[in-house]
Amino acid sequence: MNEIYVVGMGPGEEKQMTIEAQEVLESCDVIVGYTVYAELMKKMLPEKTYLTTPMRQEAERCRLAFEEAQKGKKVAMVCSGDAGVYGMSGLMLEIGEEYPDCKVKVVSGVTAALAGGAVLGAPLMHDFAVISLSDLLTPWEKIEKRLRMAAAGDFVICLYNPSSKKRADYLKRACTIIQEEIGEERVCGIVSQIGRDGEHAEVMTLSELADRQVDMFTTVFVGNSQTKEIDGRMVTPRGYRI
Amino acid sequence: MNEIYVVGMGPGEEKQMTIEAQEVLESCDVIVGYTVYAELMKKMLPEKTYLTTPMRQEAERCRLAFEEAQKGKKVAMVCSGDAGVYGMSGLMLEIGEEYPDCKVKVVSGVTAALAGGAVLGAPLMHDFAVISLSDLLTPWEKIEKRLRMAAAGDFVICLYNPSSKKRADYLKRACTIIQEEIGEERVCGIVSQIGRDGEHAEVMTLSELADRQVDMFTTVFVGNSQTKEIDGRMVTPRGYRI
Repeated sequence: MNEIYVVGMGPGEEKQMTIEAQEVLESCDVIVGYTVYAELMKKMLPEKTYLTTPMRQEAERCRLAFEEAQKGKKVAMVCSGDAGVYGMSGLMLEIGEEYPDCKVKVVSGVTAALAGGAVLGAPLMHDFAVISLSDLLTPWEKIEKRLRMAAAGDFVICLYNPSSKKRADYLKRACTIIQEEIGEERVCGIVSQIGRDGEHAEVMTLSELADRQVDMFTTVFVGNSQTKEIDGRMVTPRGYRI
Repeated sequence: MNEIYVVGMGPGEEKQMTIEAQEVLESCDVIVGYTVYAELMKKMLPEKTYLTTPMRQEAERCRLAFEEAQKGKKVAMVCSGDAGVYGMSGLMLEIGEEYPDCKVKVVSGVTAALAGGAVLGAPLMHDFAVISLSDLLTPWEKIEKRLRMAAAGDFVICLYNPSSKKRADYLKRACTIIQEEIGEERVCGIVSQIGRDGEHAEVMTLSELADRQVDMFTTVFVGNSQTKEIDGRMVTPRGYRI
């Protein structure tokens, strides 16, 4: 049985990776990934063999990895953040059915909700929902319903993929929906370039967020009814008596 | 300005900690934490000074940390998993207002949703909600509403603190509420003792989950409408064409 790894690289900096992720990657012969992440890995571990496919060739990327594993190579598929949060572990397990002699092992990493939360302060201290605004693979109506349910349930909301060239107004559309449930004064925050040069965090109201242009390297947080700003940080109290 | 760290230790094993968390803890003089986590840390870094308080003395624990920092010591408050997910970073930032000469820095870790997800397979591949079933600090009515909203929004749901001695029937109560929205055949999973001796994962239906006794070291996953079992693993497809 050939073991094949799906590894979350964490949000950006090498030191935000887990020790296990680092050890697994060091032990591999071949690293497979989306072009951008493979380039990042190459800087850390230049001596490995790298195989890449561009965006939208995710299934091909998985088969590339399994085929190397079948040749007897030790293979890791890398993802940014956590392998299991909008990452590649699901598709690897699905396509893994075609390769019964390979066993997929998932190695977790710190996803942007956690790393971005740490930069902002402590937005996720209570129950939270993570929603991607990308409608490439999900109908917008489904995203809209989830935004409404999360706001109505008073969850802290963390938005992934808040924008792209083709979806420049999606964050505004999301904010408009959320605003109908919870009002425009809610404390929100954005973090961009987490763990990379130019890392930037900002706390603002929901109405300010609605008018904000963000890029695809930004993670967005909408507080719950208790969330507040303390000294420029976004903090959701858990409810302890101080 | 004295820097004071709130550090997520990850789910269990030392190697599931990030490199940054390990470096920060190694550089500290004093490590403050809940008794159980401080004992775990002591095995890794025996030469540090450890200060602990039991459960329900969280505010005192924070003040203990700030007072050491004010003496000029380098201090870390440790939490299991991530510091910002039901951890101590929020309370540290709130109590930090009393100590304006200290600056709180949060170091993320892998929370049980991610680490448990990796053991089970890939349950969190799509939008998800994290809900704690502990009603120590949250009214049960609020928890119930969040369960209903998360199920109605077709989120994958990850439940923390699913049970305790005093709350032996809470998981059953939660499953009953979720079942009203989504039916009893939904694919679910449980993981216990993540990253520790006796780690155990199991995939089952929602109705089987409702009759299951779990302990406080268990993390529970309820799939969305697309979640399936593949070879004993719990997998939520993202929607890629295979």
